Amino acid sequence: MREEMQIAILGATGYTGLEVVRLLHKHPEAEVTYVSSDSQAGAELADVYPHLRGVLAYTLEGADPAEIAKRADYALVALPSGVSTNLVPGLLEAGVRVIDLAGDHRLPDDVYAKWYKKQPPAPTVLERAVYGLPELYKSQITGASLIANPGCYPTATLLSLLPLVKNGLIDPHSLVIDAKSGVSGAGKALSAGTHFVEVNENFKAYKVGEHQHIPEIEQVLTDVNPSGEAVTISFTTHLVPMIRGILTTSYAKLTGSYSTEDLLAVYREFYRDAPFVRLHSAGNFPQTRDVTASNFCDIGLRVDPRTNRVTVIGCIDNLVKGAAGQAIQNLNLLAGLPETTGLLNVPVYL
Amino acid sequence: MREEMQIAILGATGYTGLEVVRLLHKHPEAEVTYVSSDSQAGAELADVYPHLRGVLAYTLEGADPAEIAKRADYALVALPSGVSTNLVPGLLEAGVRVIDLAGDHRLPDDVYAKWYKKQPPAPTVLERAVYGLPELYKSQITGASLIANPGCYPTATLLSLLPLVKNGLIDPHSLVIDAKSGVSGAGKALSAGTHFVEVNENFKAYKVGEHQHIPEIEQVLTDVNPSGEAVTISFTTHLVPMIRGILTTSYAKLTGSYSTEDLLAVYREFYRDAPFVRLHSAGNFPQTRDVTASNFCDIGLRVDPRTNRVTVIGCIDNLVKGAAGQAIQNLNLLAGLPETTGLLNVPVYL
Amino acid sequence: MREEMQIAILGATGYTGLEVVRLLHKHPEAEVTYVSSDSQAGAELADVYPHLRGVLAYTLEGADPAEIAKRADYALVALPSGVSTNLVPGLLEAGVRVIDLAGDHRLPDDVYAKWYKKQPPAPTVLERAVYGLPELYKSQITGASLIANPGCYPTATLLSLLPLVKNGLIDPHSLVIDAKSGVSGAGKALSAGTHFVEVNENFKAYKVGEHQHIPEIEQVLTDVNPSGEAVTISFTTHLVPMIRGILTTSYAKLTGSYSTEDLLAVYREFYRDAPFVRLHSAGNFPQTRDVTASNFCDIGLRVDPRTNRVTVIGCIDNLVKGAAGQAIQNLNLLAGLPETTGLLNVPVYL
Amino acid sequence: MREEMQIAILGATGYTGLEVVRLLHKHPEAEVTYVSSDSQAGAELADVYPHLRGVLAYTLEGADPAEIAKRADYALVALPSGVSTNLVPGLLEAGVRVIDLAGDHRLPDDVYAKWYKKQPPAPTVLERAVYGLPELYKSQITGASLIANPGCYPTATLLSLLPLVKNGLIDPHSLVIDAKSGVSGAGKALSAGTHFVEVNENFKAYKVGEHQHIPEIEQVLTDVNPSGEAVTISFTTHLVPMIRGILTTSYAKLTGSYSTEDLLAVYREFYRDAPFVRLHSAGNFPQTRDVTASNFCDIGLRVDPRTNRVTVIGCIDNLVKGAAGQAIQNLNLLAGLPETTGLLNVPVYL
Repeated sequence: MREEMQIAILGATGYTGLEVVRLLHKHPEAEVTYVSSDSQAGAELADVYPHLRGVLAYTLEGADPAEIAKRADYALVALPSGVSTNLVPGLLEAGVRVIDLAGDHRLPDDVYAKWYKKQPPAPTVLERAVYGLPELYKSQITGASLIANPGCYPTATLLSLLPLVKNGLIDPHSLVIDAKSGVSGAGKALSAGTHFVEVNENFKAYKVGEHQHIPEIEQVLTDVNPSGEAVTISFTTHLVPMIRGILTTSYAKLTGSYSTEDLLAVYREFYRDAPFVRLHSAGNFPQTRDVTASNFCDIGLRVDPRTNRVTVIGCIDNLVKGAAGQAIQNLNLLAGLPETTGLLNVPVYL
Repeated sequence: MREEMQIAILGATGYTGLEVVRLLHKHPEAEVTYVSSDSQAGAELADVYPHLRGVLAYTLEGADPAEIAKRADYALVALPSGVSTNLVPGLLEAGVRVIDLAGDHRLPDDVYAKWYKKQPPAPTVLERAVYGLPELYKSQITGASLIANPGCYPTATLLSLLPLVKNGLIDPHSLVIDAKSGVSGAGKALSAGTHFVEVNENFKAYKVGEHQHIPEIEQVLTDVNPSGEAVTISFTTHLVPMIRGILTTSYAKLTGSYSTEDLLAVYREFYRDAPFVRLHSAGNFPQTRDVTASNFCDIGLRVDPRTNRVTVIGCIDNLVKGAAGQAIQNLNLLAGLPETTGLLNVPVYL
Repeated sequence: MREEMQIAILGATGYTGLEVVRLLHKHPEAEVTYVSSDSQAGAELADVYPHLRGVLAYTLEGADPAEIAKRADYALVALPSGVSTNLVPGLLEAGVRVIDLAGDHRLPDDVYAKWYKKQPPAPTVLERAVYGLPELYKSQITGASLIANPGCYPTATLLSLLPLVKNGLIDPHSLVIDAKSGVSGAGKALSAGTHFVEVNENFKAYKVGEHQHIPEIEQVLTDVNPSGEAVTISFTTHLVPMIRGILTTSYAKLTGSYSTEDLLAVYREFYRDAPFVRLHSAGNFPQTRDVTASNFCDIGLRVDPRTNRVTVIGCIDNLVKGAAGQAIQNLNLLAGLPETTGLLNVPVYL
Repeated sequence: MREEMQIAILGATGYTGLEVVRLLHKHPEAEVTYVSSDSQAGAELADVYPHLRGVLAYTLEGADPAEIAKRADYALVALPSGVSTNLVPGLLEAGVRVIDLAGDHRLPDDVYAKWYKKQPPAPTVLERAVYGLPELYKSQITGASLIANPGCYPTATLLSLLPLVKNGLIDPHSLVIDAKSGVSGAGKALSAGTHFVEVNENFKAYKVGEHQHIPEIEQVLTDVNPSGEAVTISFTTHLVPMIRGILTTSYAKLTGSYSTEDLLAVYREFYRDAPFVRLHSAGNFPQTRDVTASNFCDIGLRVDPRTNRVTVIGCIDNLVKGAAGQAIQNLNLLAGLPETTGLLNVPVYL
């Protein structure tokens, strides 16, 4: 009989960590052997979150790399940006393969310092990191010891745009990306911006043109840009009065005369082996509810012959394909499992 | 190797049917072999509900009892009240064991006719029906051919009150039950009462004192009432601007001097073998989110020494423990499986 | 020409203070001459709350009783319980008539200390306070120097029950009151309990049987109880995922055989001169949206002949009739104006 | 003493008509003398909408132009597109000045027929229509007999972009407009798309690139385009799970090197005499709640030096500045009143 992978979840009481807990509970090949929370070490997770009673029983511990290495082969690090930097080197040194859900290992150190305004990881750590977007970098992921799990906005944006940029079908300099997210993306921290009375019956933009996910998106688009030229985007984030879900609406000038069907054919080919990307037929578009609590990314697009622009709409659940689900997809790849293992669930549409 | 049960889902495109589809997808012993929708026969379910693409592929058919009997051992009937009545006799006759999620087989014919204002089922059918509340009637359920799956409000209310009534700890004539439900309980039909603009940022009572679930609750409470006397309740339903969840707040006069701890001990004993009932310790109370998308019923209570009344708060997901999940719990019992098979999932708390 | 009243609003940046600002802006006889916020003294209110730009311009100041007395005849104190206690004596001494929207002056000092766990006001101050429920105590209010503006839950509950208790139509010992409120009632302070992700798609009870509004309700019901006996109630508060609105559902045993129409006739008589109480005809019930942003209290009721109980449903906007609007209604009475002055607005139903 | 204007509201039971009713109730110079609803003629408006009881009393009538002309000087027509076309000619002929809130009189007949797929009005009627955007066409509005009140999306979009286009500061061919609206914009009609369970916790695009407001926006932008060239835009509409509010995010290439401050100075000058347009300072952006239930349009913008694009964010309440409020603003202009008469209210921020 196959041996289960042994997994440490670090930062289990945050929204992302909690989603890792939920998803791994149904994973047939994973055994959770270490669950950390610095602030609640010693407590039972099911006492902190009563919805877990009767389903699972984890005692929270502090995050000790040596101890983690004794009990786990893989660590899913769901700590805030700036915190995982301190923990990851010790884990790697102890031989634990790491999937970091924070932003710390996704960018060159100077870019990270500029956009996150935090101390970047050491170069020796950073050079080991592979950007964990399986639909693009599957072969690099497989053998990696450190995965930089993509951000939520970059995941939806990149999956929406990769087939167009990589195939030279749009002018990347014309890219405008208008992104909308539910409130869980802001995490559990208290702020006026997450107070129910301030959020409900309200819609607003935030970090206009200044979101730290911008360089992450540009870096990957540049990487696939056939001209090699650096891609610079217009990118605006908005807050939707809902809990889960990201929808991005992307606009770009076509480089030639293509129909909606032409482009859809390119997408179908591009995502032929991508089980979590679902394409809509012409005239149909995704909505966030179609992917809630699942690892899918749904995409629809339309060519507007009036402007010769294409509009691409992509949806993910920010906590799943935008965080915990994608981390498990990467975990599966690291472990040599089919990438869908434990992840092919019916979305909670209602 | 164990053979899977073969299951027909009738009425798969309604909210309840859709939830049966979602839950059975992860059931390790069930194979869905027949999926009906009268209005959409011939269509692919994943075309009607795009969130299902890439996960499952069912072609919708009309509901033909003879054909169902050829392919399925069990039928889960998720049709509106008044419709299942027409289908169930044929299914039973053809040897299919039936779990009816509608209200048709829960009440004596005259009571049904009075509260539902519809034609009741034939007495020969009705006499085969067992009320499918596993926490109370498990032994009767096991051998039944027809299960009347309980209503959503009755499930939350009865699980909240059975230990008190059965043990004579409250005066049943003093019972006041104030019930609140999310909007999915109203189903998929369009009405002013489910228009987003009418529901959001609004709270209201409906069917005040006239809800058709009243006789269902009274019937079971009377059944367990040690005095044998008929129980009559005050019961008011309210609409909460949310999708899923029922919370009931029940009030009753105590028959003696009991503390909160005394009563909790009675509940713990009563639900010792009930894996889906979770009790809160004194001072803690449930919230609907703790059970979302799960089959749990969470209960908390408090004795008020000022009034010598007890307040009991119970929560379920109306679509799961209040409908589809409880139906599968009953299915498990019919099939001789552990009642938790396929149902012990982490609630979608976020 | 009539001279305008000069008004100080103390605590203008909280949710209640902000609602006083909104309502007074359309008051034809009130001039706002002093607007305080201790934490933001010196700032422009319209810089703190950009929705006010272009409509009004107030500079925030600290709360100095002597300075207030120079500029204002009346002070509306929208400070938290425990804070207004410190400010009110100085205001009264300086000759300012005070309407306190906090709970500090509603209860006897020992009861206040017990339920609020705060230092009560001095007896010499407390003895001047009149409970500002105009529908019951109009004549006492008119000449008062200090009004204790009622709490939100008590307003909805008392208006729902006064005609029944005062006329001896119910057994007050049988009273069960199930209350539900929108989130603005919790105020502006940040807490896990007001985080959007925790509140939305959720329904829960809180402070079960222990809400500090219980003694306030009991005190007034006792005051009108024809038998003179102290009234003790069962009272549970719940949080609804919406911003504004309170709905209370009250249950009581009738002392005789009365029909719904009989009781409605009593209510109509009782509220003959109460322009803000609107009664529904038999078979109809209020919803919170019908009173949003208005000073109305809507009431519907039903006698259940099965139980000989009456169910009364009352709705208010917690920020208006439950706080700022009622304060202005009291202000009008203090000033000898018609109580509807500036308050007869169309509710913001949509 | 000044004589009040006499006003007919046609289509008072729809969401827009209801908002006209709410706003005119506080208008100091308007008397509502005729209130129509074809479907509910004969009923009391306050029986159809109980929130109106105790505030106003209108008996609904059918819409008879001759009778309207006897009683009213002005008609505000809040009927669906395609219906007002039938009523307006009779009203004009009878000497009533008309403000049409539907889309019927905003476009040339061929454009209307193409985008609305309905019969356009007669040319003799159409030629009398003035597009009622006061911030741009005030002088034409003043003397008009027929005002085509702008659509909700065009109002927010045009006010966001007029200063840029008119002054040649952006390349109009580069315009991308990403628009988001609350659900009240879809009106009162029942559809799966407005069912609470389908809308809540969901975000989606709709009518991608095909919204009927596109030609309305393009027509005005073309009108102000200094080059005279026809402007064609990319425009996508999205549905936000909230009741009121529109936010548009617009992107365009700058024609030169301008800073955020440069552009804000242009806006301040452009809207110097526009009391309902409020500009945010650099680094600040509007949110829909800041304008709820008010006639304001709030605008913020940012130049992105990385892309040399400007991002402009505009917010309105779709039912007020996007419909009923703007209609009253136009009414004021027709009547020679200050355009703010009855409209300078504090937004219902909470």
